[in-house]
Amino acid sequence: MGKRVYCERTAVVSRRGASRVRSGHPWVYRSDILEAAGEPGDIVRVADRRGRFLGRAFYNPRSEISLRIATRSDVPVDEGWFYSRIARAAAYRDSLSMDADAYRLLHAEADGVPGLVVDRYGPYLVVQAGSAAVERRLEWVAKALQKLCAPEGILARGDFAARRLEGLPRRVEVLSGAVPDSVTVRQSGVLFRVSLRKGQKTGLFLDQRENHRVAGSLARGRMLDVFSYAGGFGLHAARRADSVELVDSSEPALRAARENARLNGLENVSFTRANAFDLLRERAAAGEGYDMIALDPPAFARERRDLDAALRAYKEINLRAMKLLRSGGLLFSCSCSYHVREWDFKQILRDAAADAGRRVRLREWRGQAPDHPEILTIPETRYLKCAALEIL
Amino acid sequence: MGKRVYCERTAVVSRRGASRVRSGHPWVYRSDILEAAGEPGDIVRVADRRGRFLGRAFYNPRSEISLRIATRSDVPVDEGWFYSRIARAAAYRDSLSMDADAYRLLHAEADGVPGLVVDRYGPYLVVQAGSAAVERRLEWVAKALQKLCAPEGILARGDFAARRLEGLPRRVEVLSGAVPDSVTVRQSGVLFRVSLRKGQKTGLFLDQRENHRVAGSLARGRMLDVFSYAGGFGLHAARRADSVELVDSSEPALRAARENARLNGLENVSFTRANAFDLLRERAAAGEGYDMIALDPPAFARERRDLDAALRAYKEINLRAMKLLRSGGLLFSCSCSYHVREWDFKQILRDAAADAGRRVRLREWRGQAPDHPEILTIPETRYLKCAALEIL
Repeated sequence: MGKRVYCERTAVVSRRGASRVRSGHPWVYRSDILEAAGEPGDIVRVADRRGRFLGRAFYNPRSEISLRIATRSDVPVDEGWFYSRIARAAAYRDSLSMDADAYRLLHAEADGVPGLVVDRYGPYLVVQAGSAAVERRLEWVAKALQKLCAPEGILARGDFAARRLEGLPRRVEVLSGAVPDSVTVRQSGVLFRVSLRKGQKTGLFLDQRENHRVAGSLARGRMLDVFSYAGGFGLHAARRADSVELVDSSEPALRAARENARLNGLENVSFTRANAFDLLRERAAAGEGYDMIALDPPAFARERRDLDAALRAYKEINLRAMKLLRSGGLLFSCSCSYHVREWDFKQILRDAAADAGRRVRLREWRGQAPDHPEILTIPETRYLKCAALEIL
Repeated sequence: MGKRVYCERTAVVSRRGASRVRSGHPWVYRSDILEAAGEPGDIVRVADRRGRFLGRAFYNPRSEISLRIATRSDVPVDEGWFYSRIARAAAYRDSLSMDADAYRLLHAEADGVPGLVVDRYGPYLVVQAGSAAVERRLEWVAKALQKLCAPEGILARGDFAARRLEGLPRRVEVLSGAVPDSVTVRQSGVLFRVSLRKGQKTGLFLDQRENHRVAGSLARGRMLDVFSYAGGFGLHAARRADSVELVDSSEPALRAARENARLNGLENVSFTRANAFDLLRERAAAGEGYDMIALDPPAFARERRDLDAALRAYKEINLRAMKLLRSGGLLFSCSCSYHVREWDFKQILRDAAADAGRRVRLREWRGQAPDHPEILTIPETRYLKCAALEIL
């Protein structure tokens, strides 16, 4: 037998799978794999039925998305590859000149590293491994980050639901340095106290940063921030508005919001624990009027099958908000459900305007902040919609 | 017979027409009118089949769009009404703090005055009457503009094609003051010489102003401005790029562009008269590479029946441009055809990226400048798409 120094496993994909990869999409579903072998987290060569090279991918037979293309070039996916992808992502963020010390440094598939998310919070980095291949190589990731960003500490947060789909355990650990429980960060001049180990997502909703900033710059009068979470829209608005009321159904969220209001010395902010649907209905019944409303609900459609119910829910809150706004009032209306596509959401807003009998000017059609990039050939990289609307 | 000081004509519209009006759309087609009488340009009361008031409208039996709703409130549409609509439009522009002395002061249905367009070019105003009702009341319009803006002159340009649909004659006349043949205006620091009496539209493509500005702020390296017209994208880019080549098939457009380049003292700009499709093909064949390309073609789909051919044409130029761009290069790709909807255009760009085999980051999904407002319940008020793309 010949001597084999290196034997690379090859996964063979169906015509449909190959055409998807060639169109620039990184996911190959289990049903499109004709032949594959290996352990979760292996890196494999991917070929079509005729053996033609398609790329190298993160392999995980436990996941419905069994192959995640890492590269379509014939290069090794080794420590140097991880380093250069992370360096490229960091350089892109440097080019954005964001007015913030908390942002997403690397956004998984959108930055060419499937399943890896890295967020910066001041001097700390929080890493999320959402693929088995990344989980196995967290040491390479940490080394690269240390070299590129010299953080005071790197935390790996492996406590989010999607890891179950990859068969990954729940695990939160410090990868390097020391990481405190919380840190204060700045977003366009507003301070936020971020719980690094326990906050939703990796702590803040960084993807809304630029929308918060724009809302803050246009704020005026009496403002209502519905689904406020830690106060992103409301606290930015409070610097210009007369009064701001933050509404959330979660007591911990409101506690965080209260702390953030104090941190910024804002005294025109009030806090209401309530169900958003009920509150909007009650305020309308009471004949209240507002000059600005933000609606930033959690994803109403987590799965495609939730879509119809989600569209009805979005319609209801937007209709109520449009009725509550005074003439000249502003509505920042968001949807973070990928399954609610941009055009669906715009149609919902149009229907709400028609039903509310209001003339509504679309001031801006916005998305997630640019540190959460959208790649044209990967539709899933666009998920956040944020319409800035003016009621005439 | 009783004494009648005032008899208002009523147009009765079908259920479909009424529901359209109630949804916030200002157009009632001839086929949805059950009963109407009057002269082109009359203002009539509009009611549903049960006689319920729907609004007051500009009536023109010669036009396919026979009723254009002016107001859904029960108020007279008189000189004071025109004044207040124009004042509101002007106040909105004042609030935008645009870095420009040329902009659209009033954009027809989007500003609540069907068929009236008013553009400002420095100290002059150019008015377009696209409805018979406005044509008949140009004196009121001129008086209001004089009072609100104190221009040195107001020109009515009645030489655009859509007037034929309203049965209006071709006519260009000075309504007040004196109006020169051309004037120099400033758009975000770039000067343009505008031919007030003869330029396309009312002289410049004002709706692209903010897209030109953003392209200018990101420009670098070797830039190609395809369908350049008077140089909007290219001249803004030339202030930062190493070299800019403007391409247009029209000699008068290139003459204007040359004059504008001189006006700005730009010496890194060249001018090529060519068919865009041929030129893009030739440059690709010659192995050329660019750091930035702007594609701002004329409307490929003027009618809905042109849509398929238009989509193929957009696909072709975008595919070729993506192939011509170097890694890190920027593409500003536009479509001003209303019939090419936002999602159609995005899909075209996605297909082009897949076919070009390029990874493309969507930096911004833009539209027309905010002085060309989009009203949610009037989909026709959104027509311009401009994607800022980065080739990775």
